[in-house]
Amino acid sequence: MYFPSWMRQLYRGLSAQPAWASPRRSLVLSPHRRLPEFSSFIARTNTCGELRSSHLGQEVTLCGWIQYRRQNIFLVLRDFHGLVQIVIPQDESAASVKKILCEAPVESVVQVSGTVVARPPGQENPKMPTGEIEIKVKTAELLNSCKKLPFEIKDFVKKTEALRLQYRYLDLRSFQMQRNLRLRSQMVMRMREYLCNLHGFIDIETPTLFKKTPGGAKEFLVPSREPGKFYSLPQSPQQFKQLLMIGGFDRYFQVARCYRDEGSRPDRQPEFTQIDIEMSFVDQTGIQQLIEGLLQYSWPSDRGAVALPFPSMTFAEALATYGTDKPDTRFGMKIIDISNVFRNTEIGFLQDALSKPQGTVKAICVPGGAEVLPVFLKTSINWNSPVAELIMEEQRLEFIRLMQVQEDDVILLTAGEHQKACSLLGKLRLECADLLEKKGVVLRDPALFSFLWVVDFPLFLPKEDNPRELESAHHPFTAPHPSDIHLLYTEPEKVRSQHYDLVLNGSEIGGGSIRIHNAELQHYVLATLLKEDVKLLSHLLQALDYGAPPHGGIALGLDRLMCLVTGSPSIRDVIAFPKSFRGHDLMSSAPDCVPPEDLKPYHIQVSWPADSESEKNSLNLHQES
Amino acid sequence: MYFPSWMRQLYRGLSAQPAWASPRRSLVLSPHRRLPEFSSFIARTNTCGELRSSHLGQEVTLCGWIQYRRQNIFLVLRDFHGLVQIVIPQDESAASVKKILCEAPVESVVQVSGTVVARPPGQENPKMPTGEIEIKVKTAELLNSCKKLPFEIKDFVKKTEALRLQYRYLDLRSFQMQRNLRLRSQMVMRMREYLCNLHGFIDIETPTLFKKTPGGAKEFLVPSREPGKFYSLPQSPQQFKQLLMIGGFDRYFQVARCYRDEGSRPDRQPEFTQIDIEMSFVDQTGIQQLIEGLLQYSWPSDRGAVALPFPSMTFAEALATYGTDKPDTRFGMKIIDISNVFRNTEIGFLQDALSKPQGTVKAICVPGGAEVLPVFLKTSINWNSPVAELIMEEQRLEFIRLMQVQEDDVILLTAGEHQKACSLLGKLRLECADLLEKKGVVLRDPALFSFLWVVDFPLFLPKEDNPRELESAHHPFTAPHPSDIHLLYTEPEKVRSQHYDLVLNGSEIGGGSIRIHNAELQHYVLATLLKEDVKLLSHLLQALDYGAPPHGGIALGLDRLMCLVTGSPSIRDVIAFPKSFRGHDLMSSAPDCVPPEDLKPYHIQVSWPADSESEKNSLNLHQES
Repeated sequence: MYFPSWMRQLYRGLSAQPAWASPRRSLVLSPHRRLPEFSSFIARTNTCGELRSSHLGQEVTLCGWIQYRRQNIFLVLRDFHGLVQIVIPQDESAASVKKILCEAPVESVVQVSGTVVARPPGQENPKMPTGEIEIKVKTAELLNSCKKLPFEIKDFVKKTEALRLQYRYLDLRSFQMQRNLRLRSQMVMRMREYLCNLHGFIDIETPTLFKKTPGGAKEFLVPSREPGKFYSLPQSPQQFKQLLMIGGFDRYFQVARCYRDEGSRPDRQPEFTQIDIEMSFVDQTGIQQLIEGLLQYSWPSDRGAVALPFPSMTFAEALATYGTDKPDTRFGMKIIDISNVFRNTEIGFLQDALSKPQGTVKAICVPGGAEVLPVFLKTSINWNSPVAELIMEEQRLEFIRLMQVQEDDVILLTAGEHQKACSLLGKLRLECADLLEKKGVVLRDPALFSFLWVVDFPLFLPKEDNPRELESAHHPFTAPHPSDIHLLYTEPEKVRSQHYDLVLNGSEIGGGSIRIHNAELQHYVLATLLKEDVKLLSHLLQALDYGAPPHGGIALGLDRLMCLVTGSPSIRDVIAFPKSFRGHDLMSSAPDCVPPEDLKPYHIQVSWPADSESEKNSLNLHQES
Repeated sequence: MYFPSWMRQLYRGLSAQPAWASPRRSLVLSPHRRLPEFSSFIARTNTCGELRSSHLGQEVTLCGWIQYRRQNIFLVLRDFHGLVQIVIPQDESAASVKKILCEAPVESVVQVSGTVVARPPGQENPKMPTGEIEIKVKTAELLNSCKKLPFEIKDFVKKTEALRLQYRYLDLRSFQMQRNLRLRSQMVMRMREYLCNLHGFIDIETPTLFKKTPGGAKEFLVPSREPGKFYSLPQSPQQFKQLLMIGGFDRYFQVARCYRDEGSRPDRQPEFTQIDIEMSFVDQTGIQQLIEGLLQYSWPSDRGAVALPFPSMTFAEALATYGTDKPDTRFGMKIIDISNVFRNTEIGFLQDALSKPQGTVKAICVPGGAEVLPVFLKTSINWNSPVAELIMEEQRLEFIRLMQVQEDDVILLTAGEHQKACSLLGKLRLECADLLEKKGVVLRDPALFSFLWVVDFPLFLPKEDNPRELESAHHPFTAPHPSDIHLLYTEPEKVRSQHYDLVLNGSEIGGGSIRIHNAELQHYVLATLLKEDVKLLSHLLQALDYGAPPHGGIALGLDRLMCLVTGSPSIRDVIAFPKSFRGHDLMSSAPDCVPPEDLKPYHIQVSWPADSESEKNSLNLHQES
């Protein structure tokens, strides 16, 4: 495991940051200016990774873990900052030091003092940042010995995730977890500097012991000591941040812990973190500029610059072109409407589809798809397809023109209701991309970060269980689009909202909206349109009547964002102690049973289901991964 | 309500922060260099509080709340930044603007545009930071109207706290709440700069959905979807931060949300925030220096400089001298042991006390106490006291010498077992201080911040319910004092710990310790000495065996600290949305009832106590304050 220059990259630009110029710095920091002081207040003089030939001759004290030993002559010491080679003294006088360094098992913790010397000519290791030097040890102390490990640190990635989570404290020593969590800390710090120091935002903590919100399914409950009364863990500080605007804190942010109980879902966590932001006197453009600046300012320097402004697309356009509200715009294969080509076709299933309301014919062209797809309709000059002879010449030409078909491309064509057809092709588009990339075609440049705003969402959607009733597309506090307000009272289902999503490489990394700040309008939406019990929100409705400023905000999903920035396969790789997809902490085995007497103060008891035995067995660790 | 220079003081020193020098700044910030940009991304050009005669002639747009109106000529507009005077145009052409500004109720939100002009000679208001100028309005827009308020913002302090909490969003508009929460945000940001940018600490988020810890009473439970399995909300990230050290993150910090269910306790909150810190390879001195530097660096400039190092005192000394483990060292009135004076006294209750083991006679001298105390034993030259004639001459002289008694001082004397006698006098000392200050004697300078380390606590205490068994004085992970380790196996009750408390003005604002990093020792303490079920901590014990570095840490109570820094009467004044002392959110009325169907997924049901009715009534708001 080598540590390249990533640590310095983490802190690049720090020299342009606050603290450095402050007079106090000289009191606490060494002349070493580009990086923070990693060795203040403790025994060591340096970290293992920072020693170079510029340190030759220096007396140093290092603390770290034994990475490995070569014969009994060399020992490689590791800390979070890198690796350094220790020369084990061979002369009699240093027998005790040799004994310690030769007998301590791998991953034991030792402290050594000695001199930085140059490696003998020819023995330098250019692949190792400290490869020019080694440490001539004078004294050594075994700080803690290590028992036989369940697996070797360096190949933790090969282990099942269940094992990694069970021994998370070992997994955390890996280069990947060290880099991910340190980058996360740095990026959040840069965001704080941007919000707090540059733009006067106030970091305000809001409660996590709250009450159930209307329609707030998926909220964890917390029993109180009052019989039948429960707190709930909110899914976001939504109500509180709006109340802060009404309270005159017109630039709020919080790195907020949020909770959502979705049972077992892969790549979701019961608790997660969002960069939560709210502003008064702002419009959609203001929020978007703020976020673009925030990401540009905090973006890791080794991930390439962030180009502003981000492109923007309406929900309708995203659906029609990519079949989803979070398009991956790193590659084409857009959906094309070819209905007109087939207006007077004789092909039955096309006729049939086009005769229906919203009926369309759509297609995507998969470049070079012939190599990866079982061809249904091949578009070579001589079409060999069951329906080929039913396609008239001018249709064929128009079709080829629209789809810009090349030899060996494959067309995926579907006919049906607009939204269904788009969604289907949207899914196929991503699956084809996977297939092509498996074949070695690079469609999605891993170094490319493609941001996109999606706007003009519908304000309401028909309820799934009862399509004649409406539910909020996002949440009931979202303001309607100014140009659609009149429709609220006539055709609410047609009203667009002032909600906006931020999409990165096909993942939603943030979403927000301009909020309703008028009490009457909010009451109409809640009571008349959504049929919600307004009593539960009386405090908010009342607050809107007492001089609520116009306001809006956004929340960025930090875990997802870090997952994309670090190129990690799972959000669990950017969280120190994640839960398994069943919501278990495999290290401490939470959640756990609780003796009945502990439930008494909360006036609750367990109602055991008949099949609880089987459920209990399902906790088996090995079913986790 | 005037806003003095506090806002600038909040951000003093920012100009020394090179974030300003960063090239990006020019993209997003105005030439205005000393403060963050409070008006970026939104409609307004300035905040109400920042306009001075240097702005004369500028066209500005302001957004704010109507503070009050004088005749229909002047209007004072307020935002979080201050107040500014608006001149309501009187000419016909501006009738619509006049209408808006004259008819909008107080606390309505308006946006006005106009020119900054000088006030007519003689009409300047020196008490008002913007008192030299006023705004000649051209356009005005009513952004939101305000209904009749339940109370006037400016005298919110006079209201009952229950009312303030019920209308928290109005209470937050007050100068006090604005200043407290903004100062809190600034101070925490400075702490982050110190830890992250200066000293390379990593901000790592740890889970709040965990499992019950051994002896972890007072932990809220969170039912999971698995029958009989519960998460619990931890009182601190203690286990996780130790596991992070074992995971190689050797400088961790987190502004951590913690939970403690203590039922109804005044000035406690069910959720609270601590600055949580852990370091590897560190000793007690290292942690103390880190914290002293942290507080000096983040201390508000208008609260006076923080002098380093902080004085230190052993637990034994604190108890003997001040009768408590958190002495208020801003004033004297120390406890003095006068046992030797009365070794061969004839006074019965003194004889009696001194004859017992640990028996002592102790006293404090209350300067000028004669004015405030019903005198029990007056120390004038002619002692007029029941026991006076029983005191021999040399005893009297020695007594006066030791106590340094002056005319009109009062001696409070007690005889009994050392610890009990000290605790009693410690309480009396504080009560006397209150009495004296009520009389106008200034004992505790409100501008004085007196920090103190208290060290060398006992590692164990006898259990209250069963004094022959031991419990941890703090927590079971605390390392024993190096010089007492041998006693662990013979007289554990005599072992001192490596725990340290930080005390400010008589309040504990932080505590921490060097931890046990040896698995065997930790197992011995848990299993043999504390009789805990080690299975519950098997993950931690195992982790200690896999190369755990020596480590230690500390946690600062942020709410308490901010309470002292801002001089607030209650921690509820430094928290945006606090719970009442009964644990209620009086605004949203959390905790709340939950329909039985919401409990089903969690396999729990409410067990209603017989007297639940009376309990329910106790939720009545007006019983809160």
